[in-house]
Amino acid sequence: MTRRHQQIAEALRREITDGRLPVGSALPSETELAATHGVSRGTVRQALAALLAEGLIGSRQGARHLVLSTAPSQSFTELRSFAQWARAGGHTPGGQVLESDRGTADREEAALLQLAPGAEVLRVLRLRTLDGEPVLLERTVYAGWIAEAVEELPAACESVTQALLDSCGLVFAHGEHHLDALAAGTADARELRVRRGSPLLRVRRTTTTAEGRPVETSDDRYRPGAVVFTVRNSTQANPLARTQAD
Amino acid sequence: MTRRHQQIAEALRREITDGRLPVGSALPSETELAATHGVSRGTVRQALAALLAEGLIGSRQGARHLVLSTAPSQSFTELRSFAQWARAGGHTPGGQVLESDRGTADREEAALLQLAPGAEVLRVLRLRTLDGEPVLLERTVYAGWIAEAVEELPAACESVTQALLDSCGLVFAHGEHHLDALAAGTADARELRVRRGSPLLRVRRTTTTAEGRPVETSDDRYRPGAVVFTVRNSTQANPLARTQAD
Repeated sequence: MTRRHQQIAEALRREITDGRLPVGSALPSETELAATHGVSRGTVRQALAALLAEGLIGSRQGARHLVLSTAPSQSFTELRSFAQWARAGGHTPGGQVLESDRGTADREEAALLQLAPGAEVLRVLRLRTLDGEPVLLERTVYAGWIAEAVEELPAACESVTQALLDSCGLVFAHGEHHLDALAAGTADARELRVRRGSPLLRVRRTTTTAEGRPVETSDDRYRPGAVVFTVRNSTQANPLARTQAD
Repeated sequence: MTRRHQQIAEALRREITDGRLPVGSALPSETELAATHGVSRGTVRQALAALLAEGLIGSRQGARHLVLSTAPSQSFTELRSFAQWARAGGHTPGGQVLESDRGTADREEAALLQLAPGAEVLRVLRLRTLDGEPVLLERTVYAGWIAEAVEELPAACESVTQALLDSCGLVFAHGEHHLDALAAGTADARELRVRRGSPLLRVRRTTTTAEGRPVETSDDRYRPGAVVFTVRNSTQANPLARTQAD
């Protein structure tokens, strides 16, 4: 069941992504949007808050919001799964396991997962889709203690995070993400349907439980143009302290 | 004047980046490091905290820290200038203005800088170096009201942020960053000394004063392998709340 503010957000999102509302253009005012959709201004504000959080529109300038971006954006404010992020943005997530193999941790994997080198791990290659289009190829290494629960998931599991919470109460609580760019290799190009050598955004992430126990470490590669990552930050409260520390 | 803990951090950093301490290997214990360098364990901990913040080493496992990465990493925990980040990591930043031109804001620039379309802006193309190597090509658009102060900076200004704070008290307080990957164009390839089409990490950022007034919007492109960006995040305090919201 989709709620009214979600429907309005989705309608505006479509106008932005298909170019009817280009970057730099102004959205109708809250009063106009409320009249158009026959809802209260509070409902309109809920819809606009979703677009603000996605980075599609900016803060209000006078009576109107301006369009800032036309690509779906993933915020790092909170650790969210791919499926959660996709659904929050009005998109339909999908997933398919392409390969799944038990193996032994190499030195780097062992360090990231806090295992002894040579300990058993599960390696999963998974393709994620957004509205049916391939956008993300995940190479995930799971610590041995969670391997069986991961293997029991259906191959087309939409949200691994949610499924592991449901099946064994596992909470992915903290994430560390390293972002860089690299050229698509042969498997990347085939699965993401881009040319070999295309620029991909890579996110190497390690996720831990609330107690800090590493669960998985993953090399995630995003198709160009599919997703933009957003980070907001600030200087320390006192800029003078920074000047001195310099 | 470099302090003792900075010297120790720099010595360890060099062992990590030159491969003597590869990914997955363990650092000597705090006790051993204190004895080797003839300092207190408190001083050793200060040095290790810097490497932890840079993502080069992980949290302690038993008596030792493990090496997690060999590339300098830029954390998004706090808004920092390129020069501040470089120096905090023991690197020497450099910069050179390649082009500087006044022009008028297009619709997207006007939206991002909260100016009227057609308002005057200053466009600056700047190459940033790390230890003498080109790593970052910045295409920055400054709002007209700060243009003169930017034009007065020396072409090889090491830290624009610091110089504008010194010359006119301007504080870059908040940043919004959008990260994706793209292929190097002709100018990118020439200035960053990579092949055309090479994957670059792009950071589009808009920086505002403490009052939220936009100062600059920039398209920054990083040479592959030069810098990794790091983000740490967590789920909401109560994971059950997330389950329900799903």
